[in-house]
Formats: sequence, structure tokens, C-alpha cells
Amino acid sequence: MSNETLHVALGDRSYPIHIGAGLLARAELFAPHVRSRRVAIVTNAAVASRYERRLRQTLESAGAKSFSIAMPDGEAHKDWKSLDAIFARLLEEGADRKTVIVALGGGVVGDVAGFAAATYQRGVPFLQVPTTLLAQVDSSVGGKTAINHALGKNMVGAFHQPLAVVADTDTLATLPERELAAGLAEVVKYGFIADAAFLDWIEAHAAQLVARDASALSYAIRRSCEIKAAVVAEDERESGVRAILNFGHTFGHAIEAAMGYGEWLHGEAVGAGMVLAARLSAAQGRIANSDALRVERVVAALGLPVAAPAIGVEDWLTHMGRDKKNEEGRVTLILLDALGKAAIVRDTPAAAIRKIVSAS
Amino acid sequence: MSNETLHVALGDRSYPIHIGAGLLARAELFAPHVRSRRVAIVTNAAVASRYERRLRQTLESAGAKSFSIAMPDGEAHKDWKSLDAIFARLLEEGADRKTVIVALGGGVVGDVAGFAAATYQRGVPFLQVPTTLLAQVDSSVGGKTAINHALGKNMVGAFHQPLAVVADTDTLATLPERELAAGLAEVVKYGFIADAAFLDWIEAHAAQLVARDASALSYAIRRSCEIKAAVVAEDERESGVRAILNFGHTFGHAIEAAMGYGEWLHGEAVGAGMVLAARLSAAQGRIANSDALRVERVVAALGLPVAAPAIGVEDWLTHMGRDKKNEEGRVTLILLDALGKAAIVRDTPAAAIRKIVSAS
Repeated sequence: MSNETLHVALGDRSYPIHIGAGLLARAELFAPHVRSRRVAIVTNAAVASRYERRLRQTLESAGAKSFSIAMPDGEAHKDWKSLDAIFARLLEEGADRKTVIVALGGGVVGDVAGFAAATYQRGVPFLQVPTTLLAQVDSSVGGKTAINHALGKNMVGAFHQPLAVVADTDTLATLPERELAAGLAEVVKYGFIADAAFLDWIEAHAAQLVARDASALSYAIRRSCEIKAAVVAEDERESGVRAILNFGHTFGHAIEAAMGYGEWLHGEAVGAGMVLAARLSAAQGRIANSDALRVERVVAALGLPVAAPAIGVEDWLTHMGRDKKNEEGRVTLILLDALGKAAIVRDTPAAAIRKIVSAS
Repeated sequence: MSNETLHVALGDRSYPIHIGAGLLARAELFAPHVRSRRVAIVTNAAVASRYERRLRQTLESAGAKSFSIAMPDGEAHKDWKSLDAIFARLLEEGADRKTVIVALGGGVVGDVAGFAAATYQRGVPFLQVPTTLLAQVDSSVGGKTAINHALGKNMVGAFHQPLAVVADTDTLATLPERELAAGLAEVVKYGFIADAAFLDWIEAHAAQLVARDASALSYAIRRSCEIKAAVVAEDERESGVRAILNFGHTFGHAIEAAMGYGEWLHGEAVGAGMVLAARLSAAQGRIANSDALRVERVVAALGLPVAAPAIGVEDWLTHMGRDKKNEEGRVTLILLDALGKAAIVRDTPAAAIRKIVSAS
């Protein structure tokens, strides 16, 4: 039961990220945040059946009284309806501004519970307890919360930093294979955008990662969180560099929206999206074709799709045109200037984008 | 066309409050915030018919391109449905993170448009252009935004400060009489909680205020905004003193919720609520009975109801039990220690509250 603790440095909104095995049972990690408080655990039925009882016992040991709110599972439920049901339960339970919300689950639970915490009574404290690889390496860190709108993914949300992130790596043992791969997409993203040495390591350990080797996964989570924490500390509200964390996501969000939320997992769409972004980077002369091929090879080695689904060119452009990074009608893309070095690019010709998505 | 400018001191979120006649035509007040930007004006049909054209011309002179989004009028529409429709229009218009939202209207428009600005793409800039007295003296200043939940008023929202408040006092000329009185409730609230001299002035000028004497209204707005700006600067997120601005509101919110949103105007409910809070203050020995009677007399002189509607005692307690100020199941009330001095009180016996509402 060892663990490592990283820190997200954001002044008076700084917080720890605890990573390790068996952390769901470690009352001392929760106590500073929940002692003498009421706690609302937001989760879903599948996660609850495995971990809710253990977490509630731990919270009790930490001096908190808790109750649970289960939301439906899956990206299709990352919407106002789920949020409204959470608000109703909080009100029925008499939750007040001191009540702590704990997000127990994957990215959908974390995003919705986080947005509920950001807006219930204009903001209550919350903790992230991510139980999927994707949530542990990406969505639980950095304070982005959101729900989807019928017209666009993550279009309604808030920046609301958690009090702490508690990532128990034991929860990954039961993760479905597709969700493991989806999390590895975000892991390798950090290599592509910021750390060529980490990319080399991922490539060398792809088989161990896919086989859930505990020490490989543990290192991958820690290095991913280190990179994310550094980027978030530099640019909390994405006025600049934080946008590089969106590598592969402009194409990925278009895939998710075009196919219907939940058909493709977010990480799968990001996997195929990174391949397209790398091809576009090569087509624009930013990286060599061999680099783009290496991106494709590593993505495939992690068990992810490299070919985007069939989407009409106009649909691609419509969905990409709604990306939050865009300004004044121009699509903003994250491209690569090298493996390990991302660039925020606002002037990609539409014809170049058309060519890449037509060929996909 | 003179104006005065106050400031809300909140570090890098500081902003000006411009108050005066004819300000809707003053492009130089808008230009620093909207030049070269797209602007989404959120308003309702009644306000739009009077002021939208003028504001759009002014915004154009200020170098902005604008479009309008009309929401339905009234407290009953301060809900997710209105918000969702605003998001849909913003997305259809291709609004991005640089788009500025302008709230043109009363408290409902300001609260909903402000919450839309707080959460659209995780936050975009916004301007408050209040056109009712209540919005000019209270809801447009301080960054509180919210929608109602079926189970409680203002239960879902965010703190999101505007870039500026532009209060054109000319808009008060056409305000319905009930809405004028509703605004005066918030004006006299500042006297009750923080400024005995202002209370004396209001009492002496009640007739002029009700008759819309321009110079009396102008002074009342300025002094109200000064007091509110000082309180907000001291406690932006209501962790302490800001709660005194809620004087009369715990009873008032219960009236609004029990009668159905929109039956009683917010300011009317606050008027009757302040009378109850003053009576409770006297019953608790905090102020003299004569002080409580003076509160009732001034509230009546401003054209406001002093008698609460018939609500069963249990309903009173249920609704008051859902107030956002409450902690650990105890009702938090704002009472008076003197006329001009409010106190935050967490230990009022339930029996004392029952007695006051039973007699109402």
C-alpha cells in the first residue's frame, strides 16, 4: 500500500494527486477534506457495485457521513438530465455549501459530478476518485468539468479544481479492454506533445501496458499526471499552452459527435484523431512522413483504432467548426513540430483539412 | 448625459459600474469591452422592443458585431430550458470563447445570461446592462448568477463577475409600478443592514422615489451600488459578511417558492420578508418593537406589501430549510442588531421562527 503524491500548483487552489494501489482504503488521504462533513458520492451502478461500499467505509473512518447518487453509465448520459437528477437528490438530502461531492468513476462521472460541484449552490468542494485509466491520467486532473450539448461536446461547463485526486490503481484490474486502450490514448498523447523520451518508453513498453503490468501502468500514470499538472499550473484556464492537451481531440470530438456519443469511446476517437493530426502535421511539412507513421504504429500497438469511421467531409468540417478552441470562425488545431513537441495552429487552410479527412 | 462611475474592487476581476441617463447610447462605455468582438445580446421581447435597436447601434459604433437572443419573460422562465435555448443559439451562431454576452434586461435576464456566460464553453466574458431598478441596485452587481431548480430558488449557478455594469437610468421611466417598488425593496434593504443615514434619507424621500423623481432615484441607485460594491469587495464568494445582503431573503425566497415563481415579484417577497425578519429581530430582543414597526412603515411607504401571503407553517419551514445559507441543517438568518446594522445568526430556535410565521 505505497503511494506517490504529485501536486498541481495553482496558488490557493493547489491540490495533491495521490497515485497508488489500495488507496480507496486509506482514510488519511480523505480525512483532511471530509472530516465532520457530509459527503455525496456521485457514481454509476457498475462502479458502485465494485467500490462504493469500500469508499463509504473509508469515508466513515475519515469522519464523514456519506450518501450515494448513481447516474446512468456512458457518454450519452453526460447531459443536463443527469445533472438535474443529481441536483434534485442533493436538495432532497438537504446538501448545503459545506457538503463535499466525491466523483467515483470514469471520465463521464468526473465531468458531470465536477460540474454539479461547480454549480450546486454556486459551488461546493469536490474530490476526484477516478476508477478508469483515462480519468486517472487525464480528466480527473486540471479542473475541467462539463456536460455535452446536443450541438456539441463539452460545450457547457466550468473550471472547478478538486480538493484532491485519489487514483487507486487497483481499480484498473477490472477495466474492460476497450477502456484500458482508451486511457492509453491519453497516456501516449503526453509523449507526442511534450516528452519524446516518454514516447520512447511507451513504445518499448506497449505490450506490458496492454497486459496491465502494474509497475508499467503505475509509471505511465505518474508521468502522465506530472506532464498534465505542469501544463495546467502554467495555464489553468486554457488561454494559451493548455490547448496542446487537446492534440487529436478536434478530430476526435468530430468522430464522437458524428457517430453519436458513446459509440466510440472518447479515447478511441482521440487515438484515431491523433493519427489524423499527425498526418496533417506531415502534410504541412511540420514533421516527416516517417514520424506520422510512427504515431500510427504506436497508437495501433496500444490496441486503439487508427482509421477514422466514414464521415462525410462536410460533416467533418461542421463538427470541427464547433470546437471550443476556434476563434473568429477559424479552426484551431494542435499539430506536431516534432514527436514530443506540439504547436497551436490557427491558420491551417481548409483545403488541407479536407484532404486529410477525405483520405481517412 | 452625465454619468458617475463606481468600482467593484476585486483584483484582476475589478470592474466599473456606470450609472446615469442616456448611457445606452454611449459607445465609449462599451468599446473597451467589445471592440472587434462578436456580441450576443440576451434579452426578452418586452425589453428588446424598447432598447435593443439603440444598444445594437451603440455596439456597432463601439466596433462590435451583434446578434440577439430573446428569452421568455418572468421568474418562471429562469430555468434550464431558457438556458439550453441560449446555448443552442450561441452554438448555431458559431459563438466562441471570445464572444461577449450582454445581458439587457432585469434580474431574470441578468441571472440567466450571466450563468450562460459562466458556463458556455466553460466561461465567456459578459456585460450587465440592467433595465429595472432591482437589477440596477442589486442583481447586476457582484457576479452572482443562477437559475432556479424545481426544488429551490437560485440553487444552480456560479460566481462570474461582469466586465462592466452599464445602468441607464432612463430605462426606469417605463418600468411598471410593481417593478419599481420591487427595486425599492432592495434599496431600503441597504439602509436597514448597513447605513442608518441612508435609511433616514429614504424615509424622507419615499414619495419622490415612488414618483420616480430622477435625482432621488439616481442618488438611491448610486448609494445602493456603493454599499453593495463594498460588501462584495470584502467577501466575493459569500463566505462571511456578504450574507447580510440576504436580509429579508430567507423569508422572501420561501414566499416565492410557496406561491410559485412569478406570482410575487422577488422584491415584493423581500419587502414582506424584511418585515418578518425585523419582527423576529425584535422578538429576539435584538431591536426595539418600535424599530420593527418603523421597518414595516418604510416598506409600506415604498409601495410594497408588508403582509406575507397565507403559507402553512410547515411549508414555511420546509422552504426556509432549503436556503443556501444554511449549514448542517440549521437555518441561517440575517437579523438586525439595530436599524443600519445586520447580523448573521445561526442559532435561532425553530420555535421562534414558527411563532413569527404563524402570526404573519
